[in-house]
Amino acid sequence: MTNTNFQAALLALGLDRRGRQPLHTQLTEALRHLILIGQAAPGARLPASRQLALDLSVSRQTALTALDQLIAEGYLETRPGAGTFVARDLPDLAPPAAPGPVGPVPEGPQPLRPFEPGIPDMTLFPHAAWARHLDRAWRRPDPALLDRPDPLGWPPLRAAIAAHLAAWRGIACAAGQVVITSGAVETFELLAHAAFRPGEAVLTEEPGYAPMRRALRRAGLGTTPMPVDGDGALLPEGSDARGAIVTPSRHHPTGMTMPLPRRLALLDWAQRSAAWVIEDDYDSEFRYTGAPLPALASLAAEWTIYVGSFSKLLSPALRLGYFVVPAALLTPVRAALAETGPRASLVPQPALARFMESGEFATHLRRMRRIYGQRQKVLRAALARHLPDHLTAPPDPSGMHLLCGIGPALRGLSDTEIAAEAAEAGISLRALSAYWPGGAGPQGLILGYAGFAPERIEAAVIRLTAALRTA
Amino acid sequence: MTNTNFQAALLALGLDRRGRQPLHTQLTEALRHLILIGQAAPGARLPASRQLALDLSVSRQTALTALDQLIAEGYLETRPGAGTFVARDLPDLAPPAAPGPVGPVPEGPQPLRPFEPGIPDMTLFPHAAWARHLDRAWRRPDPALLDRPDPLGWPPLRAAIAAHLAAWRGIACAAGQVVITSGAVETFELLAHAAFRPGEAVLTEEPGYAPMRRALRRAGLGTTPMPVDGDGALLPEGSDARGAIVTPSRHHPTGMTMPLPRRLALLDWAQRSAAWVIEDDYDSEFRYTGAPLPALASLAAEWTIYVGSFSKLLSPALRLGYFVVPAALLTPVRAALAETGPRASLVPQPALARFMESGEFATHLRRMRRIYGQRQKVLRAALARHLPDHLTAPPDPSGMHLLCGIGPALRGLSDTEIAAEAAEAGISLRALSAYWPGGAGPQGLILGYAGFAPERIEAAVIRLTAALRTA
Repeated sequence: MTNTNFQAALLALGLDRRGRQPLHTQLTEALRHLILIGQAAPGARLPASRQLALDLSVSRQTALTALDQLIAEGYLETRPGAGTFVARDLPDLAPPAAPGPVGPVPEGPQPLRPFEPGIPDMTLFPHAAWARHLDRAWRRPDPALLDRPDPLGWPPLRAAIAAHLAAWRGIACAAGQVVITSGAVETFELLAHAAFRPGEAVLTEEPGYAPMRRALRRAGLGTTPMPVDGDGALLPEGSDARGAIVTPSRHHPTGMTMPLPRRLALLDWAQRSAAWVIEDDYDSEFRYTGAPLPALASLAAEWTIYVGSFSKLLSPALRLGYFVVPAALLTPVRAALAETGPRASLVPQPALARFMESGEFATHLRRMRRIYGQRQKVLRAALARHLPDHLTAPPDPSGMHLLCGIGPALRGLSDTEIAAEAAEAGISLRALSAYWPGGAGPQGLILGYAGFAPERIEAAVIRLTAALRTA
Repeated sequence: MTNTNFQAALLALGLDRRGRQPLHTQLTEALRHLILIGQAAPGARLPASRQLALDLSVSRQTALTALDQLIAEGYLETRPGAGTFVARDLPDLAPPAAPGPVGPVPEGPQPLRPFEPGIPDMTLFPHAAWARHLDRAWRRPDPALLDRPDPLGWPPLRAAIAAHLAAWRGIACAAGQVVITSGAVETFELLAHAAFRPGEAVLTEEPGYAPMRRALRRAGLGTTPMPVDGDGALLPEGSDARGAIVTPSRHHPTGMTMPLPRRLALLDWAQRSAAWVIEDDYDSEFRYTGAPLPALASLAAEWTIYVGSFSKLLSPALRLGYFVVPAALLTPVRAALAETGPRASLVPQPALARFMESGEFATHLRRMRRIYGQRQKVLRAALARHLPDHLTAPPDPSGMHLLCGIGPALRGLSDTEIAAEAAEAGISLRALSAYWPGGAGPQGLILGYAGFAPERIEAAVIRLTAALRTA
């Protein structure tokens, strides 16, 4: 960095003579910027103020004011009789900007591949309406949005969720019982601290949602597996667990619905044991045929905690989920949130509240239900046409993925081997057996269809056919 | 819920004859809605299709199509010879909406009171520009925003942060080294898993930021206190700690800057011990006089992790923070994020990226620096005028709060007693001693000024004066 470069940079300074900022302020900021980006090395000498004024066509007073300001800020220093210099004690500010050697940077995530499950089609999200709500919510924000945020979430969103649960799931709750989170894993972390004591055990479905189980263990809880039979999770005899986490609307990943008698037995156990039932109801809005069974939270609100999320209903990019707690748990939930700090951004919350209040959310869900129902039909028809002896795909009354059986043409191959063949062809199949510990589960393949347009589903089945016919 | 109510609700159905949806679809949805909101009790009888068609002025085919659809979905059932009825097995859908008794709901957070520290003035946030960026980012979103999000954050935002750090802090890093989080506590949780092994010890400043220490302990790390003297944190002799978390730009809460020799000693220790230095640089952009000292991350990028946040620079409601890691840590950071899932919403990220790229962010920071500097002067002048013998407030070259000494007029009162007197008058003072374990720290009071307009600062000092004069 030579003095000459600095002089050249100085001469190239563009000051806006019609700008709103006074010229001396512009000059101060421009000089500071040159120093900060390393165009002026520590110790470099500046032109005298008279010369600087001439070079830049500003008054000498303007030049002096700018230099004085930077001397006061410590960016410049004067040496009596010698002139003005870039301060020597700014070693951090010398040659920045050019990234240093950083070594190999690991790859980011791969684009979505068919048939990855659990992912909504984000291209169908009503972006224009959403952008309008964001703009309206934040252009002249409600003053309450600018005060201390309630860690439990934006109150109108909590009210809109309570109204949604009443209309869609028959759950009667007050807005004050709804807690906004950044998604299901944060929900389980908070509940681990708010509803249980360290070392207590919680029943979790096996197979089930592994990130939830790991979140509970990280929080110091024990997890006791509940085996899952054809009717859903089974209560172990004589368990001393303080809670049970279940997916009664649609078991993850098998998709089965827990029948009413088993629901009632679970609630009966919870009442007798003074335990919590945590109902993870992650996508029950996508039901294509038949009526939903009652939510546990609608049958026994006092000892049920209801967990929902917008990741599948709208987009995982929102990072918004929620849970509904009995009033008795609100104080410990506040304490848990005070400990970790809230994670859910306030930015989308007022927009989502308006999107729900306006009815656009319900319209969107109905539209997605229709589209995803069609996509399931497209996938089943394509599999029946191209791979009738390879994969059997019974219809599924709800959800976002199909659970397929393995047909005679693939006899001798395990589900993990089939998934590996498909992966070679760029197709994502999930092996059902891998959801059990040690991969010891029943054989089957999970094919998500919700996130993919019909033509993409067709093309992927054709690619899959080529891969499996040679397998 | 009588049959009569249901009939009335049926007659009141508004079908949109010019709507885009066919009439039979509208009727299906309207009937389903009546059932879902409990206007149609299970077992209620529906009018015959011919009567329904007449009542609603639709064709009989339209009425039949709607009824057939709801029978297929399970909401209605037919009894041969008796007619069509709301299905009896929908117990959850019966009488929702009216919230049940929920017991006392604890209070939400109180509005901000002067002089709470660490809070920016959110009314000065450039909302119109922000709303415009949100609208532009989401109205026709970049297709990459609709694919699988990178858990490390939106790449253009990571690039904008790298450019900001180069210009403002002299830190040379690649965009790929920047990781977006929902704030500092999540940052420390991720680092606890990515940079350390369970049971390892980390040095933390005492006093220091307590939520950070607790996050490390929750993650299974040990924390070893580093005492803080007049020059900042002191390295303990012979520590086997694997890292140190420090606030060299501005120690929390005393506000002192760590001098260069001690910074170099810390980096030397880290190099010799192969330990990480985690530099928590939470508000160094707000510096009113003098030049900033070099960021540790600009001196020794290979073993320094830099932690920043937008909570103080813009708004805590964004829930956006970040950290910069050496490339060697990127793989374990990805693994830690895969475990917890990302928490930072994608919604504000493209808007913030544009806000930074356009230069509006830098302009906002400079504006806030000017305003907060003035507010510090206003607070000091008001204290000098009204409480010259009660509180001494030396000027502070940076930050968002003043650390005041206790004057002779309050002799005999501890800082916690003074804070309690002030709280009675609706004024928030923080006792310095309470930042040390057991409240054993030096006496002093912390007064945040950034979040409060000058007239509010004046009025609050007058209220405080009345409270302390009678104390």
